[in-house]
Amino acid sequence: MAPAKPPTSTLFRGALLVTQDARRSVHRGDLRIAEGRITDVGEHVTEPTEEIVDASAFALVPGLINAHTHVAMGPLRGVADDRDLGGFLERLFAIDAKRNPDDLEAGAAQGIAEMLLGGTTSFLDLYYGQDAVARAVDRLGIRGFLGWAVLDPDKTTQSGRPVDNARSFIERWSNHRRITPLVAPQGVYVCSDSTWLEARDLAREQGTLLHYHLSETRREVHEHEAKTGKRPALWLDAIGALGPGQIAAHGVWLTAAEIGRLSQNGVGVAHCPSSNLKLAVGGVCPVDAMRSAGVVVGLGTDSVASNNSLSMLREMHLAGVLQKHHRWDATALPAQAVLDLATVEGAKLLGRSADLGSLEAGKRADLLLVNLRHPTMVPARPEAIVSHLAYSASDEAIDSVYVDGRCLVRHRELLPEPWNAIREAAERAAGTLWG
Amino acid sequence: MAPAKPPTSTLFRGALLVTQDARRSVHRGDLRIAEGRITDVGEHVTEPTEEIVDASAFALVPGLINAHTHVAMGPLRGVADDRDLGGFLERLFAIDAKRNPDDLEAGAAQGIAEMLLGGTTSFLDLYYGQDAVARAVDRLGIRGFLGWAVLDPDKTTQSGRPVDNARSFIERWSNHRRITPLVAPQGVYVCSDSTWLEARDLAREQGTLLHYHLSETRREVHEHEAKTGKRPALWLDAIGALGPGQIAAHGVWLTAAEIGRLSQNGVGVAHCPSSNLKLAVGGVCPVDAMRSAGVVVGLGTDSVASNNSLSMLREMHLAGVLQKHHRWDATALPAQAVLDLATVEGAKLLGRSADLGSLEAGKRADLLLVNLRHPTMVPARPEAIVSHLAYSASDEAIDSVYVDGRCLVRHRELLPEPWNAIREAAERAAGTLWG
Repeated sequence: MAPAKPPTSTLFRGALLVTQDARRSVHRGDLRIAEGRITDVGEHVTEPTEEIVDASAFALVPGLINAHTHVAMGPLRGVADDRDLGGFLERLFAIDAKRNPDDLEAGAAQGIAEMLLGGTTSFLDLYYGQDAVARAVDRLGIRGFLGWAVLDPDKTTQSGRPVDNARSFIERWSNHRRITPLVAPQGVYVCSDSTWLEARDLAREQGTLLHYHLSETRREVHEHEAKTGKRPALWLDAIGALGPGQIAAHGVWLTAAEIGRLSQNGVGVAHCPSSNLKLAVGGVCPVDAMRSAGVVVGLGTDSVASNNSLSMLREMHLAGVLQKHHRWDATALPAQAVLDLATVEGAKLLGRSADLGSLEAGKRADLLLVNLRHPTMVPARPEAIVSHLAYSASDEAIDSVYVDGRCLVRHRELLPEPWNAIREAAERAAGTLWG
Repeated sequence: MAPAKPPTSTLFRGALLVTQDARRSVHRGDLRIAEGRITDVGEHVTEPTEEIVDASAFALVPGLINAHTHVAMGPLRGVADDRDLGGFLERLFAIDAKRNPDDLEAGAAQGIAEMLLGGTTSFLDLYYGQDAVARAVDRLGIRGFLGWAVLDPDKTTQSGRPVDNARSFIERWSNHRRITPLVAPQGVYVCSDSTWLEARDLAREQGTLLHYHLSETRREVHEHEAKTGKRPALWLDAIGALGPGQIAAHGVWLTAAEIGRLSQNGVGVAHCPSSNLKLAVGGVCPVDAMRSAGVVVGLGTDSVASNNSLSMLREMHLAGVLQKHHRWDATALPAQAVLDLATVEGAKLLGRSADLGSLEAGKRADLLLVNLRHPTMVPARPEAIVSHLAYSASDEAIDSVYVDGRCLVRHRELLPEPWNAIREAAERAAGTLWG
């Protein structure tokens, strides 16, 4: 049972600390959290603390950052498999048109529960109807970066102008401690230059991030080039839309020139390997090349309609092995880089390096207790832990999950609400949506 | 607690039956097992039964078949990551030379425990020192197809001639109910034609399967072609070595002509996508093309040194999305085919279609109870269950595992032996091997 009143401070004693600090140090030690932040990390912390946890059987790892998803699609898992992107979107858009705030919130709660149980403590979302997602984030204690989808008014099913909807969403939620509202132009295929620039201006004015799909498929690139004479990233550059605080999802079909423009403008990329492979987009996000060019790259699961899981650990494994395969180079994207994508690089992408992504004093207490005795973590040798996290750990190895110092998962049990109630609501939503 | 005396018969009532029968029917119903076999499958089974299990919250699924691994390498997980195959093998061979029967058995028990908790009920293994693996199989209740590695006498660290060792291993273990010993020429790069044919003749004489590595890397193919003038599969065909009852692991760099020879000779292939990607072998096993040509294709994890997990569910997801990516075709290797690889096709590969791979009366009771309320199985709609098994289910969703009618995992707990004891032995083995 969760305690009625959570402790004001907790000391994790004797853990294997996978700090993800600048030196990427991994060592045995103590970590203390209080009032939502990490206060001390060291070999032996003596600060007075209300709750002491024997963490000797655990690795302490920064919470994982899912840099691209559509979490409210939970009930649509498996609804549109084994189709090309055209058939996939046709099926999804037909269902999307039927959705209401209740089933959106039920789906979001389902997805957030799955993410928390998989060690995700922050996620970046792109969808319409983000109020429902925000309510689920508020209920379940995760950290949500919620992008309201903006597209041309004649192409949307939203009532009202999407950019106005985005503005009022931002105004409604900008004071929530764990919710960061933002603007999300859906993609160049549904946004004119004026729509895109209006979205960008709104983000600038409100000081929010800008999140968008970019160069996911060949078709998108070729059609945009046929229409405008420019590949998507170069077109965005030409209209003056690129800039810092922007996260492009997918980034599969990028030329060296486009990578150069993203890098110079401080645009980051969320790599989504499972989704890209399942939809057979054909190419592979050039993670290695982008990192070499100075582009910040994070990792996203995309939605359960195209992944079909929200497991960041599974995504990390795939990101690591796919890049090696793509480059014919077994040394490409090594284990440490894989873990970086899901932690420190994800934090950079969100502009939150100062308080997310690593276990260091002063940062937010978003962290995981990973069971060193779980079959997928054996042998639990300190020199192999980063490898195990990157290549073998399963979600079941994640024993406990903290966000903002609050324990949301303990011994694989979701604490804020009973999973069974969340599940039943999600099944009901699926019942009305699958038709 | 496991009951002191297991029931002689068990009826699973009201399950969602993922039969994997010829019609691939998925329906609600009952399944009864007795004396190690499935006796009844139907909408309502009334046969008198000792134990009744309410299975309404579960899918019943055939046990998964891991068609290629080296299970005794458990303690070597993470020991040689992010290296090309040369560096990888150099590190592994140096460690292999230090191994003894005790640490081999400890490693095998670790790997078998991990496999059982991941729903694997049968596995095909290639290694030296298989007596230790056989002892672990005997202890833990899984079904083992154990191939003794054969290579040229001047290239091995085995004492005695490998083919003689294989013969005596087969003689020692051929009467065990769950153990199928077999002959395993390691690969064309360490076997002369006479070694290979002697191994093949031994398999014929003893009526065993023949399992070998084939065309894993470009280097293997190019060096063999430089030496013999023929690509490996064509060389094996030319020396008269190919034939039914043979399972080639990897099969990455195969031409259409080679696929034709494998098909005509009834040789099957174990696809190992995680390992191939992680070692950056460059190509992708042409699963679609081989299936079209009539080659039976199963799925293997390879070892934890190159995967680094033994999860068949993770491997299934990767097999599905990788083939789509490779073919630029989102309809390639759909969910049903993915599940087939790990069940009915695996059984065919092992020549055991008559009693493994599907839930049908008369077959061995090797089956899984998959929790339909697990986050990765929601929404648990019958029409989506095959998709969830292929693309989203995590090992944690596998509640219980039966082999030969015996319950080996119940509510995620390994029953035959305490996991903690197995883990401690594996950690001790790692302690001596990592050096």
